[in-house]
Formats: sequence, structure tokens, C-alpha cells
Amino acid sequence: MDLTALIDDIVAAMARETERGTVASYIPELAKVDAGQFGVAIATADGRLLTGGDADTGFSIQSISKVFALTLALGKVGDQLWDRVGREPSGNAFNSIVQLEQEHGIPRNPFINAGAIVVADVNLGGHQPRVAIGEMLRFVRYLAGDDAIRINEEVAASETATGYRNMALANYMRAFNNVRHPVDLVLGSYFHQCAIEMNCRQLALAGRYLMLDGRHPEGGRVVSPSRARRINALMLTCGHYDASGDFAFRVGIPGKSGVGGGILAIVPGRAAIAVWSPGLNTSGNSALGTKALEMLARRTGWSVFSPPEVHQG
Amino acid sequence: MDLTALIDDIVAAMARETERGTVASYIPELAKVDAGQFGVAIATADGRLLTGGDADTGFSIQSISKVFALTLALGKVGDQLWDRVGREPSGNAFNSIVQLEQEHGIPRNPFINAGAIVVADVNLGGHQPRVAIGEMLRFVRYLAGDDAIRINEEVAASETATGYRNMALANYMRAFNNVRHPVDLVLGSYFHQCAIEMNCRQLALAGRYLMLDGRHPEGGRVVSPSRARRINALMLTCGHYDASGDFAFRVGIPGKSGVGGGILAIVPGRAAIAVWSPGLNTSGNSALGTKALEMLARRTGWSVFSPPEVHQG
Amino acid sequence: MDLTALIDDIVAAMARETERGTVASYIPELAKVDAGQFGVAIATADGRLLTGGDADTGFSIQSISKVFALTLALGKVGDQLWDRVGREPSGNAFNSIVQLEQEHGIPRNPFINAGAIVVADVNLGGHQPRVAIGEMLRFVRYLAGDDAIRINEEVAASETATGYRNMALANYMRAFNNVRHPVDLVLGSYFHQCAIEMNCRQLALAGRYLMLDGRHPEGGRVVSPSRARRINALMLTCGHYDASGDFAFRVGIPGKSGVGGGILAIVPGRAAIAVWSPGLNTSGNSALGTKALEMLARRTGWSVFSPPEVHQG
Amino acid sequence: MDLTALIDDIVAAMARETERGTVASYIPELAKVDAGQFGVAIATADGRLLTGGDADTGFSIQSISKVFALTLALGKVGDQLWDRVGREPSGNAFNSIVQLEQEHGIPRNPFINAGAIVVADVNLGGHQPRVAIGEMLRFVRYLAGDDAIRINEEVAASETATGYRNMALANYMRAFNNVRHPVDLVLGSYFHQCAIEMNCRQLALAGRYLMLDGRHPEGGRVVSPSRARRINALMLTCGHYDASGDFAFRVGIPGKSGVGGGILAIVPGRAAIAVWSPGLNTSGNSALGTKALEMLARRTGWSVFSPPEVHQG
Repeated sequence: MDLTALIDDIVAAMARETERGTVASYIPELAKVDAGQFGVAIATADGRLLTGGDADTGFSIQSISKVFALTLALGKVGDQLWDRVGREPSGNAFNSIVQLEQEHGIPRNPFINAGAIVVADVNLGGHQPRVAIGEMLRFVRYLAGDDAIRINEEVAASETATGYRNMALANYMRAFNNVRHPVDLVLGSYFHQCAIEMNCRQLALAGRYLMLDGRHPEGGRVVSPSRARRINALMLTCGHYDASGDFAFRVGIPGKSGVGGGILAIVPGRAAIAVWSPGLNTSGNSALGTKALEMLARRTGWSVFSPPEVHQG
Repeated sequence: MDLTALIDDIVAAMARETERGTVASYIPELAKVDAGQFGVAIATADGRLLTGGDADTGFSIQSISKVFALTLALGKVGDQLWDRVGREPSGNAFNSIVQLEQEHGIPRNPFINAGAIVVADVNLGGHQPRVAIGEMLRFVRYLAGDDAIRINEEVAASETATGYRNMALANYMRAFNNVRHPVDLVLGSYFHQCAIEMNCRQLALAGRYLMLDGRHPEGGRVVSPSRARRINALMLTCGHYDASGDFAFRVGIPGKSGVGGGILAIVPGRAAIAVWSPGLNTSGNSALGTKALEMLARRTGWSVFSPPEVHQG
Repeated sequence: MDLTALIDDIVAAMARETERGTVASYIPELAKVDAGQFGVAIATADGRLLTGGDADTGFSIQSISKVFALTLALGKVGDQLWDRVGREPSGNAFNSIVQLEQEHGIPRNPFINAGAIVVADVNLGGHQPRVAIGEMLRFVRYLAGDDAIRINEEVAASETATGYRNMALANYMRAFNNVRHPVDLVLGSYFHQCAIEMNCRQLALAGRYLMLDGRHPEGGRVVSPSRARRINALMLTCGHYDASGDFAFRVGIPGKSGVGGGILAIVPGRAAIAVWSPGLNTSGNSALGTKALEMLARRTGWSVFSPPEVHQG
Repeated sequence: MDLTALIDDIVAAMARETERGTVASYIPELAKVDAGQFGVAIATADGRLLTGGDADTGFSIQSISKVFALTLALGKVGDQLWDRVGREPSGNAFNSIVQLEQEHGIPRNPFINAGAIVVADVNLGGHQPRVAIGEMLRFVRYLAGDDAIRINEEVAASETATGYRNMALANYMRAFNNVRHPVDLVLGSYFHQCAIEMNCRQLALAGRYLMLDGRHPEGGRVVSPSRARRINALMLTCGHYDASGDFAFRVGIPGKSGVGGGILAIVPGRAAIAVWSPGLNTSGNSALGTKALEMLARRTGWSVFSPPEVHQG
């Protein structure tokens, strides 16, 4: 398959879309972004990088950072992490707080906010937030092979000022001793992690280890094959909030979305894909991003649920 | 990889296991089954069938029948089914009834009981239960290529007498007009579907269409490729009740378990696998069955989350 | 205070009200009632009976019957009833089913439907529904001193046909063994109890034992003083569904409403009051009935929360 | 009735009780209190004050302060308070957070923690916590006619250090804009209010306005008669957490308990009663305090649900 032509088709199709969703408004800095943008980048297993649309425009990766933070935390504490965070889909936001109460402060998975706050608590590891933030930034730069990646301090500050729900969650879990550092340090670190700014090109590159069974394309291992598969599994079952099942059903590949409008998607052995468009659908995932990935999956046959020989990419 | 040797290893390993779970007791007929049994059968894409242990002993497929019932219902009403059943994981049983209330009688997915009852209501289609039951039985026989498959009437009667929770669910959804036939007819049909008796050999054969992108191995199509992938996606995200995320994490392939101790698992393009052992773990899935599939996946590399070239099978 | 003049004022004020609520539509027979009606009757501790408006028009007492059914059940099994039904307010309908799950099939109180179904199960006591229904009818006639009180069979049949939620609740509790007779018999009895038809005059007379600390005004005891107080306490905390707190706050006397538009209210030592108007407010309680009782309580000072010497009635 | 003799009987009966409950441990300072204490004080409408047991030993009034804080807040903003706090019982703690989510940050009533935090936010009124705390202390001293009442700073500090759940609730409501001052200021004020220390004598005196239809016994009005009744109504329906219904059922008078082991109970027109014993029952209310009030109510006939002429006190 000619991926270049396919990318052109996708960019053209997205330009024609009229249902473009709504830009997230609860983080004031994010609300300023122009909704008319769309970018896509595909890093293939054979080393190519193909891009289209606004692939060089930076955006706030937000919850996509949870994938990288989870990878780091597993490196620090290994499977002990799973004593403090579950691996099950969470249902809607309403259910996630109900379940947090029922399940004694153990969040359902590391990709809902409560779970990501516990991961941030693990990554803090007794250090100051700036140490943990520095480590996270170096890790993402290493994955993408790009030292230009930075944190948008305005976005981080914007979250700090409005993140009352996250403060509620963190205090709630602290009552169960499942957050162990002072809440303001944990959230300071967490908000900075979410405020990492990347473009589609950088994000696709940063995701390559997950298509390569844990290997860094430049050599060496980021994680073991088993761990890479498990992170992919979590992305498939929990990566799109309460639309995770629908994304698995319609697109059929692991993906993690962020409220900034980005989605990182992984086709094991084939491709790491980044799409971005800031308008969100009612489930809080990028409206055009989801459509673009559905179109890409349909045209390439890249579903983890189809026989490998069907793949066209 | 030598699958025959692997099956021998698995059977031997399972024989040594001491944590064998507990046989389901809420359906009186099922409680009578001897817990010391384990069977496995693998139907490969190249047409082989390999078996081990008690692969010829029949068992009640119970919730595994939901996969076949869903396939039938999609054939009848197509994607209109999704107006009446969702595609999202449900969390625990507690949450499933909460969500049924919140979501106006629309069950979260077709693999929880509420969803399967709606599917049974669709499959009833204005006919008497015996018509729908006959159609279901013919369909399963056709998939497995085996006319000896039958329904265990004692098990069906056993469920009818004790299924108060299912009666509650069905009446509850009838209040929302999401069950449209009289409740006793719908449940009569549903309980008979669950009481289909198969052995591992038959079950693995019946699952082949899901590894073959919807084709029947003897020729012709059971479902379209797209639909086969989507059923696999639902099995992965929703196939093991509130342990679906954990099964995806640890085993990494679509599967559907039943309270009779069976699990049907699908490796797209590779294999359809049936395991059976009647002892259940705390999540209500076969204890040895889950372990056997985890061992099989690890040894073969058969994860939908790993690059295809890693597969050894 | 001149109660006759007060009743005239109330009838006149209610005639001027424009917010008259909505007649219940989920029971087809009830939906046929003319919304423009209002009646009131006050039976005083000194033996008078004062009426106004449509006090002689019969209506379906519906949930008000739960007060009489509870009184009967306590007579049969005494405080053992409280092993099967709680005594706490339930929050909204949504929470009541959540709590039923959390609390293992024990309804929160005897005035929500689930609790009243358990009470009906107790009152059935191994007999046929017609026996229990006959007993209930005789009891209400004895309380009111009026043998003309009857059951409206059309209403009872109307509920039977549409009562899917009640069937769901009853089956659900049967799964916990907290309903012990066949569900159709229990509900048959329950629906007939709800279909008792009374007018305000009869209802006020039937409630006299609760203002008289358990005595029947014609002599003898219906219940002990302690039990009469406790039934009043339950009416105050649980008598108006999820608006019970608001009714206690605004009116300040025990009351039990029914979806037919009636309310029975008790001023201990002073009066038993029946009001009726078929339009319901958003909480499912009679809109004019609630307003009339609030006006009556304000004008008479009849609040259980004020010093007795304040009472003017 | 001879109240002096009755108090002696109660003190003697409580001394014989072996089921004395458990002292609250979640606030470290409270855990240090000796569980073997019991005190009672009754202020009567005719101006007597009768005491027994450890009636002069100070204790932390904790949630009983919510009654006084509510009275103050109603004085400041009147019925506008009810736009931000409900008037319905809340069910258990689990349901209270579920309902907070469902009901958009509006707590069910002013006596659960979430509601009391909103009341503290209202009472803060743009001032510094020390201003609001000073006002509250002056108000309680005025009600009791005793300037010796003080705040226990060790208890206040003890709560501040461990109050993660309250911080979660406050942040959660701030996300809905139902807490409007900075969370640490609101909670600082709230924790000091809860740390007011009083003995039974002072507490009974402070409660007199609620038995006197809002009048201060020394002259003047604290609140209008209507408001006094409504506060009593809230105490009856919501004053004992998820055992409010049971307290109304068994004791039959308005009461508000605190985790320090105190209960303030009101018999309109008759008495304001304070009991204290630090051991709590499983519902979190004073074990001996509840028993003592039940005994007192039974012996005096002081139930708001009995005819006034039955009262013996």
C-alpha cells in the first residue's frame, strides 16, 4: 500500500469534515487553540516517517503522557505498581469515582486521572517535582530522538489553577494512603507531565518502541517484549475513557487519546501513528483524530483483530 | 513450534496445579461436575485440530453461547442491534445494574447477562422459543461441522428454576421497552442457549470463523471480515466480565468464558482455541483455563499486541 | 381555631392555584383521572370530621396502602419484620436500587416499592392472594368504620400489565431470598392492595389510630402506643420518597403520599388529615395536596417540631 | 415526672452497660479520650437545669457544631442557602459522594460533611478564618450564656493534618463552584468549628432556643419560630448520618450527634438535652448516648410522634 497517497486522502477527507467537535474548555490555555487544524504522522517498522497536514504544529499531549509515565513507573517499581493501580476499564467518569470508593482508593487503571496520579506519585519517588519532571522530559526526548520537546509552562500553570477535581481525587486517595507524597507536589508533577508539548512527528517517533515489542529503533530496549504488549493491551482496553470499547470495535488498534486533541495509536510490528485535531467528540476524544484512524485502519486492514496476512500497509 | 508437544506440556502443568478454583454452585446442575478435569483443543488456520486432556468431555458452554448468539443477531438486524446494546466494558456486576439504570435500560455490551438477554430477545424475532432455540442449535452445529451437539435440558431447567436475577434484569429492561417479547419466552430461549453442551474439540471447531476473518473453513462466509474483527474486539474488551482487562493484559488474545468452565479464545489468522476446566477463579472465569491460555500465549508468542513475526505457532 | 373556615380558605386557595402538577401516566387507569379536583378531610382527636372540596370522590390510594400493610405485617411478625426491611430514608429511585444491591436485597424502608413488596410477601403468609387481599380490605374498612371501601379491579389489572419494574424488584429480592412466595402471587396481592379506592373522608377516618397513639376511636387498640409512634416516625422520614426531608422541613408532620394524588397526614393528638388532588409534582407527590398541607400546618401551627402550646387547631 | 430521679436511673443504667462502643480513632486527639465516661444534662422549658454523671467534663462537639453553624448561615443568607445545600437524608457515606456527583456538587443536607463545608464557606463570607471562627465562638457562648466555652487547638490541628477526605470533598465542590473561598481557608474554619469544646451542661443550655420555638431564654429571638422548627426537622431526618431513620424510629425526637460522643436532642416545648459518652456504635453515633436518650424518651413519653398529653416530663 502507498501510505503517502493514503495520508493525502486522509488529510483531504478530514478537510471536508463538518463535524469537527469542540475544543476542550476546562483548561483555559487549551481553549485558545484553533479548532481547524489536523495533523498526522506515521512511523513505520521499516524506519520511514510519513506526515500530512499540520504534523509540525505542537500541541499539549495531556493524557497521552500517561503512556510514557506508566512506562517509567514500571521501570522503577515493576509489577508492584499493580498493587496500587488496577488494569480494568473504568466505565464513565461517574463510575470511576464510585469505584474508587468501592475499591478502597485503588484506581481501576493507570489511564484514568486517578490512576495517573498514583503513577505520578510513584514517579516522584521522594524527589522534588522538578527532578521527576526533568526525568520524564528526558525520557520522552530519548524515545522520540528529539531534544526540542519541551513543557508548556502556561498550560501547566493553567491546570494548576483549575484542577479542583484532580485535587479532590488526589486527596481522596491520600485518605487511603494510595497517594504518599504531599498532594501539591504530586499534582505539580502531574500537571507538568500533561503539559508536554509535541507535534505529530515527534509523537509518532516517541511511540515506536510500542510497535517494536519494546525495542528502541536506534538500538537497545526500552521495555521487555512482555511489558510492551501489556502496555498495548492497556491502551486498547482503557485508552479512550468510556469510549475505549467503541474505539476497539471501530478502529481495532491500541490507542491513547489526550484532551489536547492528540491520539497515539500502535499497530504492533507495523506502525506508530500520531494524529491531532483539537476538536473533541462527546466522549472527550479527538473527533477528526478518531475518524482519521478509523479510515486508516479500514484502508490498511491494520486491525489487531484481523489475520496478519490481511494487512496491506 | 511443535503444538503437540506444547499441548502435552500444558496438560501436564495443569495436572500439577493445586489452585483449581471452585465449581459454580448457583446453577444446581453445574455444581455436580467433577472439578478435577481439564481439556484443550486447538484448531489451526491451516486446518489441523490438536487436542489434549479431557477434550472429548462435554460441558455446558453457558456464556460462550453469547458469541454465537451475537453473531446470529447481527445477521438478523445488522448494526441496528447497537441501538439496543452498547459496546463498552461494564465493570463489576454491581456497576452493571447501576449503569443499566443510568443508561435507560441499554446494557453496556452483549456479553453481560443483560446484553445477552436483549440479544436473545432479538433472536426470538416473534417466534416461539423452540424456533429460536432450534435455529441457534443448527447454527452452532454448522460452525463446528458436528450434528451431535445438543442442549442439556436438565441444565436449562435448572437455570429456569433459579434465575431470579436474570428475571429481574429482563423485567427491568422490559420497563424501558428494551425487551419486547414476554419475559418468560425470552428467558426460556436464553436459558436453552446457555445450556448447549459441547466438548473442547467441538468448541474450537465452532470458533474457526473468528480466526479466519469471518470465513467458514469449509467454504463460504459466516460474517464479513469487518464483523469478525468487531466480534473479536468485543471478546477482548468484554469477554471475561470484570477481569476482561486483566485477561487482555496477561493473555493478550480475544476470549469468551462461561461459568461452566469453558473459554473460547481466538488468535486471528492462527488458531481457535477451546479450554475447559470447571473450577472458577474469583472473577468467575475458569481458573485452569485462564492459566493454560496464559501459558500457551507466552510459549507461542500469540498475542494480538506483539508484532506478527514474533508468533511461533 | 375555626377549622371549618380554614378548610374553606384552603379549598378556595387551591382553586386559584395554577401549578397543579401532572397526573401519573405509568398506570393507564390512573391517567384517565380529571386533574382539576381537590378534596380535604380532617378527623380531629375530639371526634369531629370536617371536609371540603371533592372529599367524597374516590381515588386510588396506591402507596398510602403501605401504611396499613405495614401495620398488618407488624401485627403478624412483630419486630422480626426489621430483619427483612430497613428503617432509613432511601434517597432517589436510582439510589434505592443501588442500595438494594449493596445491602443484599434488604430494602431501605417499608415505604419504597421494594420494601412494600417484602411487606406484601409477609402478609401473604402462605395463603392465596385473595385471602391476603380480603384481610387487607377488612382491616381498612375496620379502621375507617366504613364497609363501602372496595378495590378497583381495573386499576389492579392495569398495574399488573405494566408493573415491569416491580417485577424486576421482586425477582431481584427473590434472588436474595427476601421474597419467599412466588413473585406473581406477591405482586398480585401487592397490586390489589394499591388499588384500594377511598375518598378523603374515608382515608382521614382510617388514619385516626395514628393520631390516637394506636387506639381505635370506637374502642380497643389497633397497635401499641410505641408502634403507633414508630409508624409515624417512618412516615415522617420516608413517607414522600426523595422529598421526605423537604416535606418534614416545610410541613413538619408525618405523611404518606400515593401516586393517585392522595396524602394521609397525622398530627399526633390532634388530627388525621386526608388531602387529594391527582396532579403530581416532580417528586411524585400531589402538588396541591402538598401545598394544602403546608398552608394547613402554617395556619394551625400543627408541626411536630413546635412546642405543643403553639398549636391553634 | 421526677426528672432528677430519672437522671439518676439513667446514669446508673449506663454504668452497668457493657456494650460501650469504640472511641473514634481517625482524629488522633480524639482517640486519647477515656471511653468510660458518661454525662447528661437536661435544660427544661421552665428554666431548670438537671445534670448527671460527667456533665461537667468538656468534650469536642464536632458535628454538633453543624447545628449552630447552620443557624448562623441562615441568619446571613436566609433561604438562599438552600440553593447550595439540599434538605434530604443522604444514605450512607458511599452514597453521599455518589449523590454529590449526580447532583452537581450540591450536598444533600447541611449535616453531612459536604453540606457543612458549604455552610462554613457561607459563614466565611469573604473574611479570614479567624474572623469566622471568632463569630462562631461568640454565638455559641451567647446561646449557652457561658463565656468559658473555647476551641481546643490541638483537636483543630489534629483534624487539619488528617482530613484528606474533607479536602477531597471541598475540592470536589469547588470544581462545581459550590465552594467559593480557597479550600484551605474554608477547611481551616470548619476544623476549628468542629473543635469547639463544651460539656453537657453548656451544650444543653446552648440548645434551648430550639425547644423554645426560636426564643433565647434570656429574652429576644435567635431565629423565627418557623426557622426553629425547620432546624429541628433537619435534625430529625438528617442528624444521625445513616442511622437517622433508626434514631427517629427508636427515640422519636430531633437530635444531632458528633463523633466526639456528644448528642444534642430537642423536645419542642419541653427540654433541650445533652448526652455524652465517647464510645461510638457502628453508625458512628455515641453508643451510650443513644441508649440513654432512648431510655429517657421511653420513660418520659417525650416523642414528637405521640400526643402531647402523653408527655410525663
